[in-house]
Order: sequence, then C-alpha cells, then structure tokens
Amino acid sequence: MKFTSPMSADLDHQITTLAQRARAASLVLATVPTALKDAALQHLAELLTAQAEAILAANGRDLAAARENGLTAAQIDRLTLSPERLQLLAESVRQVTRLPDPVGELLEETTRPNGLVLRRVRVPIGVIGIVYEARPNVTIDCAMLCLKSGNAAILRGGKECFYTNTALATLITQALAKAGLPVDAVQLIPTTDRAALTTLLKLDTLVHCIIPRGGEGLIRFVTQNSTIPVIKHFQGVCFVYVDRAADLAMAEQIIVNAKTSRPGVCNAAEQLLVHREVAAAFLPAAARALIAAAQVELRCDAAAAAMLHAARVRHVAATNADYKTEFLAQILAVRVVDSLETAIATINRDSSGHSEAIVTADAEAARKFQTAVDSAAVLWNASTRFNDGFEFGLGAEIGISTDRLHARGPMGLRELCSYKWLVTGTGQVRN
Amino acid sequence: MKFTSPMSADLDHQITTLAQRARAASLVLATVPTALKDAALQHLAELLTAQAEAILAANGRDLAAARENGLTAAQIDRLTLSPERLQLLAESVRQVTRLPDPVGELLEETTRPNGLVLRRVRVPIGVIGIVYEARPNVTIDCAMLCLKSGNAAILRGGKECFYTNTALATLITQALAKAGLPVDAVQLIPTTDRAALTTLLKLDTLVHCIIPRGGEGLIRFVTQNSTIPVIKHFQGVCFVYVDRAADLAMAEQIIVNAKTSRPGVCNAAEQLLVHREVAAAFLPAAARALIAAAQVELRCDAAAAAMLHAARVRHVAATNADYKTEFLAQILAVRVVDSLETAIATINRDSSGHSEAIVTADAEAARKFQTAVDSAAVLWNASTRFNDGFEFGLGAEIGISTDRLHARGPMGLRELCSYKWLVTGTGQVRN
Repeated sequence: MKFTSPMSADLDHQITTLAQRARAASLVLATVPTALKDAALQHLAELLTAQAEAILAANGRDLAAARENGLTAAQIDRLTLSPERLQLLAESVRQVTRLPDPVGELLEETTRPNGLVLRRVRVPIGVIGIVYEARPNVTIDCAMLCLKSGNAAILRGGKECFYTNTALATLITQALAKAGLPVDAVQLIPTTDRAALTTLLKLDTLVHCIIPRGGEGLIRFVTQNSTIPVIKHFQGVCFVYVDRAADLAMAEQIIVNAKTSRPGVCNAAEQLLVHREVAAAFLPAAARALIAAAQVELRCDAAAAAMLHAARVRHVAATNADYKTEFLAQILAVRVVDSLETAIATINRDSSGHSEAIVTADAEAARKFQTAVDSAAVLWNASTRFNDGFEFGLGAEIGISTDRLHARGPMGLRELCSYKWLVTGTGQVRN
Repeated sequence: MKFTSPMSADLDHQITTLAQRARAASLVLATVPTALKDAALQHLAELLTAQAEAILAANGRDLAAARENGLTAAQIDRLTLSPERLQLLAESVRQVTRLPDPVGELLEETTRPNGLVLRRVRVPIGVIGIVYEARPNVTIDCAMLCLKSGNAAILRGGKECFYTNTALATLITQALAKAGLPVDAVQLIPTTDRAALTTLLKLDTLVHCIIPRGGEGLIRFVTQNSTIPVIKHFQGVCFVYVDRAADLAMAEQIIVNAKTSRPGVCNAAEQLLVHREVAAAFLPAAARALIAAAQVELRCDAAAAAMLHAARVRHVAATNADYKTEFLAQILAVRVVDSLETAIATINRDSSGHSEAIVTADAEAARKFQTAVDSAAVLWNASTRFNDGFEFGLGAEIGISTDRLHARGPMGLRELCSYKWLVTGTGQVRN
C-alpha cells in the first residue's frame, strides 16, 4: 500500500481501510489452530536471519538519519541492529512458539440450577493497536505476541525507526503468507504522520485496544485522544523501604541491585525510605555501596543528609519534585521515615503504583505493607527489578501495565486475551 | 457540601476535592474487614425502610417535575419509588451482604526457580465513577456493589432523579458513618451540571475506572471525554439463529422468549436469522406465535416476506438500518440465510457483540457457531435473555459489559476488582 497523498481525508480513508482489514483478519486469526500460528512464527525467525542484509541496510538508513539529527549515543544504540541482535530476535520468536497457546483455555465451568452449562473461555481481544517509539525490536515483539494470542495487530512505530520497521513488517507479511494466514493480521502504519495516529485512535468500532509504549508525551497524547480502551505502560517511580527490622546487609544488596543494575528501566528503584531507628546504621554504608557500584547521586531529605554529612558521604539536598520523579538514571531520592505507617502513606501518595519493596525480618510488618501498598507488585525482601514478565514466569511480555483494569503488572500472552461465555442449554427460556 | 457557585473554576475545584476524598477513602476501604462492609450494608437496608417517608417525599419532587416536563409514562414508572419498591431495594442490599467478599482472594500462587514466591491476589480497583441516567435504584445498586468490593464510588445520576438520589445518598452516608467507615467512600456529585461530569472524566490520577450506564448519547459523551479507562455497558443488537438442524418447536419458544419476555432490556433479541432449508416450515408458525404473544412487528427481508405473505401472516419490509438496530420494542428484524457460515458472518458484521443464540440439534454446527461468533455470550439452545449476572450465578451485577477488556458480559463483584502481585523473597536480587 502506498500513501502518496498526505491529504487528510485520504489518510483517514487509508487508515480506516487498514483497520477494516485488520478486523477481518482478526476474525480468521481467532479460530486458527496453534500449529499455523507457530508455523508463521518459525518462518519469521528464519527470515530474520536469512534476510539480515536487507534489514541491516534499512537500519543503516535510519542510523544515518539519527546521526544527522543529533540523537544521543544511547538513543542510537537502542536503534541499532546487528547480525547478533537479529539472531537474538529470531531466538525470541522461536521461544514464543514454545509457549502454550492461551486461546480456548477453559477458565471456569458451572452448571446452573436450570441445567444451563456455562463455560468461560479465553479468546483473543481482537484488534490491538500498538503505539511505540524508537526500538525496532518492539516491532517483532508485538507482532509475535499478538499473533500467538490470536490478535490482529496494527503497529505504529516511531519515525526514527521507520525504514527498519518497514523492512521488518515486510518479513512479517512474508511469514504470514507462507503459513497461509491473512497478511493483514499484522500491519505497520506506513506513515509516521501524527494525523494517522489520531485517526487510528478514533476507530473504536474496529480496534479493541490500544497499548502505548513510550515516554510521557506519547502516553498523554494517546490517553487524551483515544476513544478506544487504552492499557498504559507508563512510568515506574519505584520505592524500596528499609524497615526497622530489616537485615541491613540484605537491604543494602537489594537497594544496590534495584537502583544500579539497569537504571533506565521502569522497575528500577528511584526512591529509598529508611526507618529512623536503623537510618544511622544503614545509610552511610548503603550510600557508599551505591556510589561504589555506579556513582549514584543521593538526593536526601534533611535527616538523611545530616547522617551522610556526619559520615562524610557525598550527597545533595533533594527538592520536593525529586520525591515523585522517575530519574531513569543513577540518581536516588532518600528519605527517613518514622514508622511503617508513614512509609505506606508516603508510597501511596508519591509512587506511580508500579513496584515497591519492603526489606524486613518482621512478617507482620511485611503483611501490613503488602496489603496496604496500592501498587501492581509489592515485594518483600526482593529487588523491585523482578517485576517483569519473564521473571514472573509469563514466558514473554508485551510490557508492564500501570493500569488497574484488565491487566496490572506484566502483560504476557494471557493478558492479551479477553474471554467469552459459552452457554449450552436444552431449550431453556427465561421466566 | 454546597455548590452555591456555578462558576467553572469553583466547580472544578469542588469536583477535584470530592475525588481526592474518594481516593483517600478507597485506601481505607481496600483493607477493611468484610464484616464492617456488611454492617454498613445492613444499616443501609434498615434505613431504606425506616426512612421511607423522606425518600418518597424527595421522589415526589422528582415525579412532579417529570410530569411537568412531559416525561412518558414508562419514564415516570422507572423513576417512581413506593414502599414496596423500597422493601425490594432493601432486600437486594441484604442479599449482597450474603455474597462472598472478592477482596483478598488468591488467584494464583507459584514459586520461581530462584525461590521467589508469587501470589496474585484480588484487590479493589480503587475509585469507580458511575455515570447513569434516570433510575433511582441504580444509586443503591452501584453503592452496594462498589462498597462490598472495596471500591470508593463517585455517583453521577441523571437530573430527573436528582432529589431522590440526594435523599438516597444521605442514607448511604448515614450507613457508612454508623459502621465506622469513611463517609467519602460513596459520594453523589451534588449537581447535574454537565461541566462537573467533564471535570470528573479528566481526573485520571484520582479515579481509576468510569462505568457509564445509559443511552447512546451518554455513552458517546463519556467515551469521547474521558481520560480515565471506561467500561461501557452499551447496547445489545442480539441475534437468534435457527439452524437447519433446529428443533423447530424449541426454536419458536426461544425466539418468543428472547423477543417478548422483556423487550426493553439489552439481552432481548432484535434479530432473527433462519436457515433457508427450514424457513418455510418455521417462519409462519413462529411469526404467528410472536404476534400472539406480544403483537410483534416483523420486519422482513424479501425471502422471509414472501413466505409470510404466502402464509398470510402480518409483516412489513425491513430497511437496511433495521438489521443493525436495537429496537427495545416489540419489533423483530427477520432474514433468511443460506448457511451456518453466512449466519456467523452476518452476526459478526451486524451484531453489537452482546448475546447471540443458535438453535440446532447439530453439535458440530453449535461448536462452530460458538467458536466463531465474536460476542460476549454465545448460547446454544437457550434464550439470549440468560446473559445476566444473576442468571450466570454472579449473585449481583452492576451491568453487562460490551467491552472486551477487563470484563466482558455480566459484571459482578469479582469484575469490580483488579489484582496485585505479592512477591516474597529471602533477599533475591536480579542479575
């Protein structure tokens, strides 16, 4: 399909047609056998290595533009494909073929007093629109997970990755065709014009779910413009709370891991709360360990600052904004709290509801914390970094939902499904 | 709280404050014991009869306005409370006290290879906004179901019911206070100014879910203006398909029940498809039965019309619009189809995805229909009227979701909940 005219009515029509084809494909995909979907994925895995040259050439065009446009080294790294990265991508596709098909799973079965037999079974959602930014692997990730879960996908990637995404979408189309599946089951919107996105977000009779993955600007735009239900994959302002009954050595390992192992991801810790009774014993050593591990900048409240000052450990004063910030960098905001209850209230006020951990040897404190903290994952004596689809055993993830409806936390194949009710009777009518 | 000034900034502030109080109450409500919630419901049930006089006086004011404004007899009937209806309402509240509390239910538990124990537990969604139209019983229904499921509720009822809703909200506040629960757990927006609704629909950091219940205009308004996730309770353009292998006597009973037992509800049938091989044998008798039962107007395609004409049964010609219409009246659109596949494709194109039934003695045809029809409930040899929370054994329902995310079909207490992940470790950190 060519988008030769950028005129708005034309674009509207083209996006609507694309969505209509996705809807038609979704009805086919919803009932095809697992083996066909896995065959398409196997073909895709093969093509990713067999066609590496073409993909890398397209990627080269994006990289040249990226350098011209002055993207940062980190941004360019995220954009870059290589033969090795394509191998890994192909392997991730093969892994999905080994996961169980969620479609058709019987969720519950009951017989009513009037003899009706009710079965609730898992079915695909239908048509899922994925709106994302620069990483090209997201194109393959989303395509493979939507396909395996029986959903048609409409992909809208970022402009920085346009040529790479287009090359990858061509492979996906080839893989679908080779398996005898509708090629409209996965479609890339062939323009990065924002008007196309705005049109897509209003097609609520054809598209059943929008998943935005990206920065705050993108998420806001999608939330404000979509009449289609949205599942947000938003930020993580994650807390670690070191309780007065904490094993302090364990607490130090956990905060170092949660903060420094991968600071750019949503389940990294950004906030440290320490109970006053253990603050003087814990903070100086923990701060030194954070600095030793990754030169972490500690942004402290007055109490924490006083302790680090006394211990001659490098730190700065926090601002109020720091206490609600997702730094995505080697920065940690540090506060001293007077009680478990204050820690819970602070988290429920300032966190983004993603992942929070308590370190304590007191089971009752942990129970209270896990019950009262209103976040997707609440961890006891473990790093926040574990809130992840692979670590949770889902086998794959399309992201980590920060919403409360439908899916909360990691979204795997199961969370890409809805259900329907099948009712079997013998002629029952209702009084 | 008084809304003395209608100025917009003021109203914004007042609605925001109301939502902040709801959010604070929701954190309390999420962890209170079942017995406290049930105590509040018991108090409410008692107040509904003890304070009947005050409620009926308020209802009288609404009814006087309704008559002045020329509402129809059916609308006035829906608005009207009586001592008997209050008794029934009180009994429905008592029934909810007897339902199991969904909060805290363990949904799954696994141990990961690294020793982490994962538990997924049911928790309330948080703050739920319910936007509805004239029926005063909805105020009590929503309050009791949100309360039992641990959610704070913000209720925004219709202007026709304003005085009745205000009186009922007063009782709810009294019941909450008497049980020692936060009175902000259930709040009625004390104005029917649409600007208040628009403000509410943007408070996505405080309110977690909006459930609109009402006509198309209301649903559209909410969908287009909300940045909060919406679960729609929309229309039912429900189909009954009489297969060539149908027991025709059973099919006649089912279509008469599905069409005539309560035509104003969303699970009533609006569309009849009949396989060509049985159409001549089925349609005249079924049409006579529908007319005898409720003077049903049959809007027919050419093939059906020819058969009814030959049999001298009253009918009219259908328009194309009729095939996608929710009549909510004793009207039925009738079409003859050539195959099961055509029936499935017709339904997936024209239905609203609510409830569809097949009547057939052919198990393979039924299996195919139930697999391929993309609707919330797909019934075999049973009336569409069974798609209902009580009939499905949920014990209660806040409505029937026509969305695919979170809940599809009847929404009971369980569907008013989210979940969270509780992770228990022994100091695990991630590589």
